[in-house]
Amino acid sequence: MSELTPLTAIGEFALISRLQKGISMRQPGTVLGIGDDAAIIAPTAGTELVMTTDLLVEGIHFDLAFCPLRHLGYKAIAVNVSDVAAMNALPTQLVVALSAGPRFTVEAIEELYAGMRLACEAYNVDLVGGDTTASRGGLTLAITVLGEAPAGEAVRRSGGQPTDLLCVTGDLGGAFLGLQVLEREKQAFLADPETQPELANYEYIVQRQLRPEARLDIVHELRERGIRPTSMIDISDGLASEVLHLCAASSTGARVFTEFLPLANPTLEAAAEFNLDPLTCALNGGEDYELLFTVPVTDHEKLKNHPDITIIGHLTAKEDGANLVTKAGQAVPLQAQGWTSF
Amino acid sequence: MSELTPLTAIGEFALISRLQKGISMRQPGTVLGIGDDAAIIAPTAGTELVMTTDLLVEGIHFDLAFCPLRHLGYKAIAVNVSDVAAMNALPTQLVVALSAGPRFTVEAIEELYAGMRLACEAYNVDLVGGDTTASRGGLTLAITVLGEAPAGEAVRRSGGQPTDLLCVTGDLGGAFLGLQVLEREKQAFLADPETQPELANYEYIVQRQLRPEARLDIVHELRERGIRPTSMIDISDGLASEVLHLCAASSTGARVFTEFLPLANPTLEAAAEFNLDPLTCALNGGEDYELLFTVPVTDHEKLKNHPDITIIGHLTAKEDGANLVTKAGQAVPLQAQGWTSF
Repeated sequence: MSELTPLTAIGEFALISRLQKGISMRQPGTVLGIGDDAAIIAPTAGTELVMTTDLLVEGIHFDLAFCPLRHLGYKAIAVNVSDVAAMNALPTQLVVALSAGPRFTVEAIEELYAGMRLACEAYNVDLVGGDTTASRGGLTLAITVLGEAPAGEAVRRSGGQPTDLLCVTGDLGGAFLGLQVLEREKQAFLADPETQPELANYEYIVQRQLRPEARLDIVHELRERGIRPTSMIDISDGLASEVLHLCAASSTGARVFTEFLPLANPTLEAAAEFNLDPLTCALNGGEDYELLFTVPVTDHEKLKNHPDITIIGHLTAKEDGANLVTKAGQAVPLQAQGWTSF
Repeated sequence: MSELTPLTAIGEFALISRLQKGISMRQPGTVLGIGDDAAIIAPTAGTELVMTTDLLVEGIHFDLAFCPLRHLGYKAIAVNVSDVAAMNALPTQLVVALSAGPRFTVEAIEELYAGMRLACEAYNVDLVGGDTTASRGGLTLAITVLGEAPAGEAVRRSGGQPTDLLCVTGDLGGAFLGLQVLEREKQAFLADPETQPELANYEYIVQRQLRPEARLDIVHELRERGIRPTSMIDISDGLASEVLHLCAASSTGARVFTEFLPLANPTLEAAAEFNLDPLTCALNGGEDYELLFTVPVTDHEKLKNHPDITIIGHLTAKEDGANLVTKAGQAVPLQAQGWTSF
């Protein structure tokens, strides 16, 4: 193992200059990237911008005991890009504010940046600036992303109409079960540091937890199919919480059919192993970063047979409330356990 | 004293809803503010955007022992807006990412937001989004600001030419001496908690430290006088460091005349009291958030007699290096002690 450099050994400017290496610009709108008081951006004519910020705090949002820094860098970008996707927009530029305590080395921060660079490449977004400082504690990452949508095409949470179809992308609950596996292996390791983590059987759900992807592919596909969702949100806190957000913003109720909730086989298997109800994992697990959106019933044909979009129910009048409908036809009010950092 | 609410007593969504109160939108380009996955912004036609982010970390950038939360909120916005001003742009929208440990109350975070709202009003910028989470340690604030400049009018650090005049706004060194006063009073308080802080005689420099202003007024005035700086940077780490940044980016040298450096009387008095060289405070003190910029010699007439802009020297050929010229005519190489958080 080569020698590691403490952050205190090089100044802030030298660190920034090392982190800048390998960062390249892809967006035609990026006029000036890292290195000045601010980046300069020329927005594409005829577009509207979206802007969102997300904070990842060590000990609250991630545990470096099992989250490799490269994955963390990738995920930090992905969760922000996911918010851009949830507006029906595509990301263009982002800035990264980072603080790290004395136990971090220059090489560790470079690993983190390597992951961020990978994500920038995957999502075709430019890292145009940032701020890097010391902290007295752990690692904190604040990322702000700018995105573009054709003017008037950005989708809010508030446009849903009663009878609109309620759709989700991908499958749910996997990220939460991946976290359970990682927590179990961490405890086993703490009890006996000779233990080798047993993750091979859980590759899918562990990947869902450690390296989620923002569903930009869906934004592109919806455009290709001529579909503009009436409302949209990304699923970060669990499906139940997000359905309630959409309903509140759109002033509607909803019916979600449990039998239609998309659950992957590895998720079902892990739920059985952990003696957890897979539906609860899907409804309240969080961190899936899939998209929840509504379309008019008339778009049904355009969506049909999409391999990665599932119609899970529909909106209703507000008075009917937001309900979960069991296979037996019984309606129970949806409740968000959601996730709170406090 | 009324009862205080621990952050843990209300959820994240309830907190956000409380913080949102009193936030109003002023910018015509703000299509959608707080409350969705992202804000929506319609950029003004014919403009370019600038984007910058800055992190303030408790124990590194501020000490709540003497920095009131309201002032901290104001300052956090001001230092970011200062970066926008340094691009010759005006701020339009910003987002706030905040993490706070268990010792913070809802009321404390509301105080912080009250200061941010004041700054948004003063700088005519809209707070359009954010993220608020717990931390295991202190308070961290990451703010990202978007600004606009007419296309092609944004000013970089790199446009300076040999013989350009080197100008600064306001006066220098005050914020650093304000910090010395506050640190002294903190020590006195720690030694004897009955001690009342003696700040009355230091109002100006303490204000410079606790509540600096971004020099947007100068951006407006330069436009009114038909001046576009060839290069510009804000003075956050001390004049010496910033002159060296401008010279490096512009591939020039510089001559800075010590006798022209603007020092306010309260700064000179405090420097004498603390037995510090006021020139060193101006050159290496930091946190003044004034602007350093260059203009062609031919703009001299337009700048003359501006009460708040001082010509402190000029750029030179790169080979001459960046020098400080004493009253006696002696040139010494400029050296940045600057500030590093690591």
